[in-house]
Amino acid sequence: MTALVLATRNQGKIVEMQRLLSGVEVTGLGPDAPEVPETEPTFEGNALLKARAIAAHTGLPAVADDSGLCVDALNGMPGILSARWSGRFGDATPNKDRANLDLLLDQLADVAEPRRGAYFICAAALVVPGGAEHVVEGRMYGRIIDAPRGTGGFGYDPVFVPDGDDRTTSELSPDEKDAISHRGVAFRALAEIIPALLAPTDRP
Amino acid sequence: MTALVLATRNQGKIVEMQRLLSGVEVTGLGPDAPEVPETEPTFEGNALLKARAIAAHTGLPAVADDSGLCVDALNGMPGILSARWSGRFGDATPNKDRANLDLLLDQLADVAEPRRGAYFICAAALVVPGGAEHVVEGRMYGRIIDAPRGTGGFGYDPVFVPDGDDRTTSELSPDEKDAISHRGVAFRALAEIIPALLAPTDRP
Repeated sequence: MTALVLATRNQGKIVEMQRLLSGVEVTGLGPDAPEVPETEPTFEGNALLKARAIAAHTGLPAVADDSGLCVDALNGMPGILSARWSGRFGDATPNKDRANLDLLLDQLADVAEPRRGAYFICAAALVVPGGAEHVVEGRMYGRIIDAPRGTGGFGYDPVFVPDGDDRTTSELSPDEKDAISHRGVAFRALAEIIPALLAPTDRP
Repeated sequence: MTALVLATRNQGKIVEMQRLLSGVEVTGLGPDAPEVPETEPTFEGNALLKARAIAAHTGLPAVADDSGLCVDALNGMPGILSARWSGRFGDATPNKDRANLDLLLDQLADVAEPRRGAYFICAAALVVPGGAEHVVEGRMYGRIIDAPRGTGGFGYDPVFVPDGDDRTTSELSPDEKDAISHRGVAFRALAEIIPALLAPTDRP
């Protein structure tokens, strides 16, 4: 059976990808997987950087993603800096999602519609060792509200209301969020093309 | 003698403008001048907003400016949010320049040249009551260094090195800074056109 490594240690993400890819054995990162700094200036570049490193380390086809929030009034920032918008953190820093979100709300305090428009973006990369490289992109458009609502999701979910809904992505069920989210869109697009790319005849 | 109001309470700025404009009496804001929120999405818009408010309040030609720092790796931000990049402050908050600067350095911690490129921009507006409106723009290009240097200037000066120099704008003398700064360029350009605009024959 063809195997594929997903650049995550999140078991939920592995199960979800496995559900999208019948006929492919999906595994996550092992304890010895390399830490890959996100040094590229684009989501696509960082996703590729991670997928290449994991493919090289494991010798298996690897999938990695990079995601972020792009806000109109901030010229598309926090962007690739979304996870460290309010500064660098140690892994043990509590509430870093909240610190990032509070800073964003503060920066937008005097900003009115329509400049509170925003989108989440996910670039998902597939790298086959010695073979193909593919990147697909998913986006979810919406706007930033004034104060957090909801308990689900993570990151900026409590202040993001997707177009066509009145709830924040924190207030959606996981299934509802997956159906419209940037990450859901990108991973389903990648899942569409993976079986053909991993077919034995395509491999060196 | 023709009079002009400069939208500032900084006596140094008034003296500097007076030096540039012989034949025009330059005054600053009085204690009853309106506070004008900077609600426009552009430097030009905010400068005009302030100049219009002061011209309407005083009945005199008014000059106002809006300035900020635009960093390549942040898609041109902090931009119009430069003065409140790390959040809203009360007027009494100490060290807000330092808080903004520390956040910027943290956000750029993993960013290498040439993406540390940046420029200061100043939009300076002149509004003649019932008459002309003009906006001119000045820029100073350079880059953001890793750690602050120098004690002069204010804001992001300690981390900005202008092109053609090795010193930060904090390490330049006031005269050296004025000669190349975004604000110096914009105000000199405005001073060039003010005498003609304020000549009696041009006034309704």
